[in-house]
Amino acid sequence: MGQGRCILFLFACLPASLLAGALPEGRWVDLSHDFAEDTIYWPTADKFAKSTVFAGETDKGYYYSAYNLAAAEHGGTHVDAPVHFARNKLSVDKIPLEQLIGQGVVIRVADRIGKDRNYKISVADIQRWEEKHGTVPENSIVLLDTGSARFWPDPVKYMGTAERGEAAVEKLNFPGLGPDAALYLAEKRGIKAVGLDTPSIDFGGSQLFKTHRILFEHNVPALENVANLGALPDKGFTVIALPMKIRGGSGGPTRVVALVPD
Amino acid sequence: MGQGRCILFLFACLPASLLAGALPEGRWVDLSHDFAEDTIYWPTADKFAKSTVFAGETDKGYYYSAYNLAAAEHGGTHVDAPVHFARNKLSVDKIPLEQLIGQGVVIRVADRIGKDRNYKISVADIQRWEEKHGTVPENSIVLLDTGSARFWPDPVKYMGTAERGEAAVEKLNFPGLGPDAALYLAEKRGIKAVGLDTPSIDFGGSQLFKTHRILFEHNVPALENVANLGALPDKGFTVIALPMKIRGGSGGPTRVVALVPD
Repeated sequence: MGQGRCILFLFACLPASLLAGALPEGRWVDLSHDFAEDTIYWPTADKFAKSTVFAGETDKGYYYSAYNLAAAEHGGTHVDAPVHFARNKLSVDKIPLEQLIGQGVVIRVADRIGKDRNYKISVADIQRWEEKHGTVPENSIVLLDTGSARFWPDPVKYMGTAERGEAAVEKLNFPGLGPDAALYLAEKRGIKAVGLDTPSIDFGGSQLFKTHRILFEHNVPALENVANLGALPDKGFTVIALPMKIRGGSGGPTRVVALVPD
Repeated sequence: MGQGRCILFLFACLPASLLAGALPEGRWVDLSHDFAEDTIYWPTADKFAKSTVFAGETDKGYYYSAYNLAAAEHGGTHVDAPVHFARNKLSVDKIPLEQLIGQGVVIRVADRIGKDRNYKISVADIQRWEEKHGTVPENSIVLLDTGSARFWPDPVKYMGTAERGEAAVEKLNFPGLGPDAALYLAEKRGIKAVGLDTPSIDFGGSQLFKTHRILFEHNVPALENVANLGALPDKGFTVIALPMKIRGGSGGPTRVVALVPD
């Protein structure tokens, strides 16, 4: 079909929104937990704190409220920038927008996780998805649904312990992405970014954080504590993850959303 | 033209990306300043602070870096939620995603601002845009380019003073949206949100913050300290503003981006 004829038909058939370069019709899904006193942080990390500057009627006759914030970069729904575990790699403000925006896929492994929650998502788990849906497309944002979000915000169920401090780290217990599978996604599939519904892209018992190190050497950022993956289809949607633009930050609070077409 | 025939032609003509519900082709423009020690805050607000938890080689043989953050909600590129100035209105975590995502327009007024920078953008300024481009569409996100972003991060040039504390407030001097124009946009044009390249949607000399109060009574959030509006066309692009999801927050750090179609 000739291009001229195509353009003619496009104008006749397409909604005006598409012609103007607008987003396709669809529903927005929020994949972010909120930040509050019960937001889950690593046992050694400063938790989120919000303090009141003012909240009430002013002497000028109108209502006003404002708060101050404090938190570690890594807690709640956030991104790990490559420099979190890889010297001279991208800090969070330098991650190109295009790398945190792209077509999403969800790989679901909740039914693979046994009583020991320290499950490592494997190449076979990814290939099981690929047998059903085809090869994970290049430049995808791959989201891993371990079923853990249903435990949020209970830290014992979610990550194995509610204790705080260095001694609690050895009690951490939650699923993560295995190093082999991280290498497969980064090198064989050329993904843009990865994300999951646990506190860390490495499993809870990890000592050497090999998956972080493999991903970040490849400049593949990781979204952690992602919410609501059950509301997404397995593929065919767009992920938009926009982090707080912290100059030189190793990561930070990130609003992760998805556009699921009608 | 019949719908069935339309669908047939669409499949023949459209790029596969559009059919899959993917975003239209275009370039992403970052409309956000970064957060660092020189990020501009209101004279009475706590500035952004980043402290090092660790940055260097660990005893396990890999590099690691992580930081803590602290700041007021309102500073840098951020959103004011309606509850900032209107009791019982939406807090930042409750603003629907759909309200901060939509078609953008830019109204440019840099050439209207005289030596006293306390200019109030008027209904006439908006109508001047409308004479050229047509009525501001319902559900738009209206961005006001006062030309102030070129002064960032110099607080004297940007907002009239580098001093800190209550006494500095009366020295503030920068353009804002006039109350009449705010009412026009909220009631006559039914916009989703408004944004501008100054520290506040009210002009620097404002005492009663009438524009904030009008907008927020209408549940119209305001983006402040927006960057890079000169990189956008006057219309025909999509704005995506994703705030940090602070439970009960009156606003917060927000990554504002635009998709400009090719």
